[in-house]
Amino acid sequence: MKILVINGPNLNLLGKRKPDMYGHRTPEEVEKFILKYFKEVELKFFQSNSEGEIIDQIQKADAAYDGIAINPGAFTHYSYAIRDAIESIRIPVAEVHLSNIAAREDFRHKSVIAPVCIGSVAGFGAYSYVIGIQALAHLIKRKSE
Amino acid sequence: MKILVINGPNLNLLGKRKPDMYGHRTPEEVEKFILKYFKEVELKFFQSNSEGEIIDQIQKADAAYDGIAINPGAFTHYSYAIRDAIESIRIPVAEVHLSNIAAREDFRHKSVIAPVCIGSVAGFGAYSYVIGIQALAHLIKRKSE
Amino acid sequence: MKILVINGPNLNLLGKRKPDMYGHRTPEEVEKFILKYFKEVELKFFQSNSEGEIIDQIQKADAAYDGIAINPGAFTHYSYAIRDAIESIRIPVAEVHLSNIAAREDFRHKSVIAPVCIGSVAGFGAYSYVIGIQALAHLIKRKSE
Amino acid sequence: MKILVINGPNLNLLGKRKPDMYGHRTPEEVEKFILKYFKEVELKFFQSNSEGEIIDQIQKADAAYDGIAINPGAFTHYSYAIRDAIESIRIPVAEVHLSNIAAREDFRHKSVIAPVCIGSVAGFGAYSYVIGIQALAHLIKRKSE
Amino acid sequence: MKILVINGPNLNLLGKRKPDMYGHRTPEEVEKFILKYFKEVELKFFQSNSEGEIIDQIQKADAAYDGIAINPGAFTHYSYAIRDAIESIRIPVAEVHLSNIAAREDFRHKSVIAPVCIGSVAGFGAYSYVIGIQALAHLIKRKSE
Amino acid sequence: MKILVINGPNLNLLGKRKPDMYGHRTPEEVEKFILKYFKEVELKFFQSNSEGEIIDQIQKADAAYDGIAINPGAFTHYSYAIRDAIESIRIPVAEVHLSNIAAREDFRHKSVIAPVCIGSVAGFGAYSYVIGIQALAHLIKRKSE
Amino acid sequence: MKILVINGPNLNLLGKRKPDMYGHRTPEEVEKFILKYFKEVELKFFQSNSEGEIIDQIQKADAAYDGIAINPGAFTHYSYAIRDAIESIRIPVAEVHLSNIAAREDFRHKSVIAPVCIGSVAGFGAYSYVIGIQALAHLIKRKSE
Amino acid sequence: MKILVINGPNLNLLGKRKPDMYGHRTPEEVEKFILKYFKEVELKFFQSNSEGEIIDQIQKADAAYDGIAINPGAFTHYSYAIRDAIESIRIPVAEVHLSNIAAREDFRHKSVIAPVCIGSVAGFGAYSYVIGIQALAHLIKRKSE
Amino acid sequence: MKILVINGPNLNLLGKRKPDMYGHRTPEEVEKFILKYFKEVELKFFQSNSEGEIIDQIQKADAAYDGIAINPGAFTHYSYAIRDAIESIRIPVAEVHLSNIAAREDFRHKSVIAPVCIGSVAGFGAYSYVIGIQALAHLIKRKSE
Amino acid sequence: MKILVINGPNLNLLGKRKPDMYGHRTPEEVEKFILKYFKEVELKFFQSNSEGEIIDQIQKADAAYDGIAINPGAFTHYSYAIRDAIESIRIPVAEVHLSNIAAREDFRHKSVIAPVCIGSVAGFGAYSYVIGIQALAHLIKRKSE
Amino acid sequence: MKILVINGPNLNLLGKRKPDMYGHRTPEEVEKFILKYFKEVELKFFQSNSEGEIIDQIQKADAAYDGIAINPGAFTHYSYAIRDAIESIRIPVAEVHLSNIAAREDFRHKSVIAPVCIGSVAGFGAYSYVIGIQALAHLIKRKSE
Amino acid sequence: MKILVINGPNLNLLGKRKPDMYGHRTPEEVEKFILKYFKEVELKFFQSNSEGEIIDQIQKADAAYDGIAINPGAFTHYSYAIRDAIESIRIPVAEVHLSNIAAREDFRHKSVIAPVCIGSVAGFGAYSYVIGIQALAHLIKRKSE
Repeated sequence: MKILVINGPNLNLLGKRKPDMYGHRTPEEVEKFILKYFKEVELKFFQSNSEGEIIDQIQKADAAYDGIAINPGAFTHYSYAIRDAIESIRIPVAEVHLSNIAAREDFRHKSVIAPVCIGSVAGFGAYSYVIGIQALAHLIKRKSE
Repeated sequence: MKILVINGPNLNLLGKRKPDMYGHRTPEEVEKFILKYFKEVELKFFQSNSEGEIIDQIQKADAAYDGIAINPGAFTHYSYAIRDAIESIRIPVAEVHLSNIAAREDFRHKSVIAPVCIGSVAGFGAYSYVIGIQALAHLIKRKSE
Repeated sequence: MKILVINGPNLNLLGKRKPDMYGHRTPEEVEKFILKYFKEVELKFFQSNSEGEIIDQIQKADAAYDGIAINPGAFTHYSYAIRDAIESIRIPVAEVHLSNIAAREDFRHKSVIAPVCIGSVAGFGAYSYVIGIQALAHLIKRKSE
Repeated sequence: MKILVINGPNLNLLGKRKPDMYGHRTPEEVEKFILKYFKEVELKFFQSNSEGEIIDQIQKADAAYDGIAINPGAFTHYSYAIRDAIESIRIPVAEVHLSNIAAREDFRHKSVIAPVCIGSVAGFGAYSYVIGIQALAHLIKRKSE
Repeated sequence: MKILVINGPNLNLLGKRKPDMYGHRTPEEVEKFILKYFKEVELKFFQSNSEGEIIDQIQKADAAYDGIAINPGAFTHYSYAIRDAIESIRIPVAEVHLSNIAAREDFRHKSVIAPVCIGSVAGFGAYSYVIGIQALAHLIKRKSE
Repeated sequence: MKILVINGPNLNLLGKRKPDMYGHRTPEEVEKFILKYFKEVELKFFQSNSEGEIIDQIQKADAAYDGIAINPGAFTHYSYAIRDAIESIRIPVAEVHLSNIAAREDFRHKSVIAPVCIGSVAGFGAYSYVIGIQALAHLIKRKSE
Repeated sequence: MKILVINGPNLNLLGKRKPDMYGHRTPEEVEKFILKYFKEVELKFFQSNSEGEIIDQIQKADAAYDGIAINPGAFTHYSYAIRDAIESIRIPVAEVHLSNIAAREDFRHKSVIAPVCIGSVAGFGAYSYVIGIQALAHLIKRKSE
Repeated sequence: MKILVINGPNLNLLGKRKPDMYGHRTPEEVEKFILKYFKEVELKFFQSNSEGEIIDQIQKADAAYDGIAINPGAFTHYSYAIRDAIESIRIPVAEVHLSNIAAREDFRHKSVIAPVCIGSVAGFGAYSYVIGIQALAHLIKRKSE
Repeated sequence: MKILVINGPNLNLLGKRKPDMYGHRTPEEVEKFILKYFKEVELKFFQSNSEGEIIDQIQKADAAYDGIAINPGAFTHYSYAIRDAIESIRIPVAEVHLSNIAAREDFRHKSVIAPVCIGSVAGFGAYSYVIGIQALAHLIKRKSE
Repeated sequence: MKILVINGPNLNLLGKRKPDMYGHRTPEEVEKFILKYFKEVELKFFQSNSEGEIIDQIQKADAAYDGIAINPGAFTHYSYAIRDAIESIRIPVAEVHLSNIAAREDFRHKSVIAPVCIGSVAGFGAYSYVIGIQALAHLIKRKSE
Repeated sequence: MKILVINGPNLNLLGKRKPDMYGHRTPEEVEKFILKYFKEVELKFFQSNSEGEIIDQIQKADAAYDGIAINPGAFTHYSYAIRDAIESIRIPVAEVHLSNIAAREDFRHKSVIAPVCIGSVAGFGAYSYVIGIQALAHLIKRKSE
Repeated sequence: MKILVINGPNLNLLGKRKPDMYGHRTPEEVEKFILKYFKEVELKFFQSNSEGEIIDQIQKADAAYDGIAINPGAFTHYSYAIRDAIESIRIPVAEVHLSNIAAREDFRHKSVIAPVCIGSVAGFGAYSYVIGIQALAHLIKRKSE
């Protein structure tokens, strides 16, 4: 099983940006942290600050992966284009957030992405990725049975 | 480690109510499904249709459990009293939903509970409980280390 | 045919509370007034000030009655938990109000219950129950034919 | 006792328009269906697609009828002119809807007519007229006693 | 100088409808009351409950009158079609109201007609017409000088 | 193929009203302009300032025409009754506007008619009718093939 | 009969400020223009840029005048303190505006003063004062008869 | 004179929950603190996390007490059922809050309870109860004189 | 201990303005009524209809008084300048209202002053001042201990 | 005459994405379908998922084309940057949509692009491009005459 | 060149009020700080807590100064009267704020003054005045060239 | 000291786009105009129409510059991704606008960028850059002292 992990804008700054909120691990350390939980799932990581590149990647993933775990960063709150991309593909997508967005600024309370995902996870730090991918894998497996 | 799983109103009807949305498992079957994933965590289940009883239970859990996984059902959207109860205790609480509430009626898009939880999970069916509890356990463990 | 009539919070005060709006009959007198209109329908009355008890009752009624006529009182305007209970059962539910809620305070103009009922009646005093039950009975009969 | 039944725009299309929502009976069949329930009440039916004609009719009815049962169709949601007409006359008016407008599009949730009626009925198909007229007759009788 | 006075829906009920708010004079008495104030201005009165007829009349008045004083009744609050008609003609239009609409129901606080009139008068009973027409005449005179 | 072109309130003033916005052609000239583009489509024109008459016409057109091109004028923004009429018939309806309503006053930004049409055209002056009718004809033809 | 004319902030700049909107007359010329219309009414003029002074003046006028004509300038849109002052006195108050505030910026569409006045006039330039005072005088006379 | 003090959800946690906001006294200590201020007023304390039980208590208090001081906790912001209960009884009710709710989260700024109370006190910690009860006693005494 | 009592606009009209709402006592009688409750607290009264003078007074009080009890009248609802003044000083301020503002017009439901006060009292007539000052004195005393 | 057709995000997925809504033709087939309608107009097609690239293209088109037909995809609803680009160039731009966006999700009802276009077409599938380009060509021709 | 610097309510408390936000300099020190940057510009400082006095000053400045730099304090957010004063004069006005109002309370995010100024500066402490005046001087100079 | 000046979408069109609003200088001329004001500050200019590239640049600038002056163009109003980028870096950022955005279309009144900048300047044309950079330099210098 192959799952693509997409990280949106500014997530390349992990470890530097607001460590109290996003944790002290760098992107590489977060990847390692996640990888050690998955043996049977092949994970690939992609990060971009560009909405267009993320859309390109989502479109391409349809043929190459079994599912996507996406942390759209700030695009969560306004990128209807990413939403349309997710709605256009056939593989399932799970939304993942490091911080508990419901407990932050007002503009972060609404996700325009969530309605087209199969589910979402928020607030458990890097562990959000672990359980988001796990749930995705669980679902893909059940469907393919 | 002891975790209390609280289910809010109408979740006793699982398996009967909108099976396409909530799944075909009865509450007992959901409990069994969850339990098989946890060996080192002692799980206790509580369900009530009464806001007051859920608040009582949250308050009592503070002394008896290490964390709470709560699916507040429809109370998610207006029970500021449950929110206050969660904010009043010291053990961490994770919000859990069977369905992807962001993809349903407008009134279900806002959770008044989420801002006082450590994190939330939605949309993965009964598996939402599994990963919510897992994340909670992960967090409790890390804190106690 | 068996129909359960559920009265929500403060409806036990009928005859005392705002008689110009709700009429001078006590709950017992209202019941009598209603009963004399129905010979072939078995009516049972239930009143509670507790949201949880009303939900319990709705759930139980599913197996024991052919329909429910409910006056949710103030719960009309915010109890999404009662709404979910009604949506979860198979027997039809009719919403009934003594006063014309559209002509009162702003917060009373919106019913969160109505969208999951088959129909609603408001403004005809105790006679609202009579025609609400009658419509319910008409519908149940037609379906069972 | 004489009651005027007013039907607003597009209600002349009954039986053709969205039969799943409005039923399969033509306007004539609906009239027959209603008439068979009333022996002591003289019913007259009026339909128009024109707001002005409906207002004219409401004004004239004040001297000629004991009450009005009105299904304002789409005018329900914006005709403050019909509202003013109803508020200007002395005979009681009951609002009647075939479908459960609370369960349909957002714009149908608000009735600008309801606040000036004595009561309203919605959702019971053609039977809504039957119980609306019945309630109106009940009220007129009680007043004249 | 010729001025057309247009009265909208339900203004034919003057003297009957809410006399405390609209006064005890019948339409004929109001006309007489107004006429005695004007010697050099030729006044013509038109009333209709139909939006379409009022629009027709406004369009025709463009060639036949020097100005219009209009009390659009409830159309004040939603008839963008009457607004467009007024905006389409060249003669000036003054908005006139018997009651102080700012002191009544919320929906009466907004006039969609006012922005395309040269001015408006409200709250002085039948005398509102007198001063509205007077102001209109003053303006027409000044322009023609 | 027969298509009915319906023009709403104040569109009989074309050429006079705001020529910079609506063009200098009179209604007759606009009709001629449109007609010269269609040889195989039989076009009939209807204009009214009355909402009721437009509804009557829409209802009658169902049996007599293959499609309707409608410019509802100001009714675009509030006539839910016209919307219901369009939704009630079986032939396709295209919405047409001379001016670019999105670039004008706020109240013109929302069309209550558009959601029940098959498509809409705005901003191309009299040519909006040409392409709206053309698209309608294209669609009718394809369906009948 | 004595009437006080109160002018709010920036109305001392008449003739200088936006002459296309407010006219070319200076405050003194406007006063003269108004005075020539009234022989039996004693008029006194007061202008201030200070909300507090206007309130003081309104309070004092209660004992010394028979009525007030007020153009509250920008205070129209937010001074609940002036509103309270007007509501606290017994003599009638008429609201007067030079320009048609309904046709200007959004914030000018709402008057917090109007609901406590007996009536209001807007859009007729300096003539608005003339007819506002005239209506006030008409009313005071009728009351004292 | 007998006054009932009702405490809503989570107020049994006083001393534990957010001591910086709610103070360090336990419920028992708060009761003692209050009691020492009143000699002639008989005080009874009731706390519940259940909306229904609070309504029951308010209804019963009508016959047994001279007034109620209520701190509805989070129910302040949405319990229209408690509001109706208060509106239904004849004895006066004063609303009391420990913290200054106007200075906290947005959802705490609106009280649905306040409009049916005679008055309210907020922000003075446990002393809010003292002055709320005192004002209630003052009022009851004055009425009975 | 010295406390300054500040009264905002129109409160000099007490006894005259809406006596059913504000009581029949004149400002002098209210002062006497209040004074008789306080022996150890030196009270000074200040009233103004001018926002600027009230701000001046608040600023000066910082050095001369131990606390302020303020009834900002209508300024309660929009004077962010008074709010800033209160936030800028070090002595505590209590908000006081004669009437229950939550039960009156919509615009009175929001206080822009309350968030920067230590607490607020409303609805107990002149007695609101008594308990507001008392609470303030209680707090000042406790702090100075 | 040269016209550039710009397609926004996810329009490269045509034929795959929601074929019931967007049709079964691939982008290449849509291009062919459009091309066969135009002989005298030279059409060039550009698609991108990147907002920045679309802006670049719009800017460059100003010197190289006579007009632009743009389907901004999801950017329709929030890209004020694309709006500014269109407003900055001199050649006319027509907005084109395959589906009837007024009949879909709420967020699709508002176009931030439309106000700066000369006109817009929606709902006629691939034929929307045909008539949009045709209208654009008609306009360009008329201007150059 | 002569520029008037106007400071609104509570700005006389500089150095005392919230020094972390507004800095530690007293008003005199701020004036000195500003003055040392300007040699060719004659600066005059005016501060008032009274809206009326600020309006008076703005009006007078029109004849005596070449420009105004204004920090309206809390009046920024609601004084439409100051806005009108600024709009009424011919000399340019620049809005200046010490703190970054966009990063503070919601009510501070909207300036009713900004739309009638030529520009605005916020967030650079006392240096905001320096650059605001500098920009104003730059503009005045360029115009007079 | 090194400061990066970032220009957002469509700012490469300066001199061409709406010269009355944005001035007649080309981007190169604007750069020259700015540069001549700064001797001790090293300025570098960057422009892009792509949100992603701007984020990349902001991230890189953190290590290479002492501060950023940004004119985000239309991204000002919706790019939460750029906002997050600014919030993630340590060097100070100043927001700069050529035009007075508060005086333009509604959507331009809100900046999602401003709350995370240290300050903002708008309305002074190219001179906005000069004073924005100057303020930034002033601040950086003061901090490094």
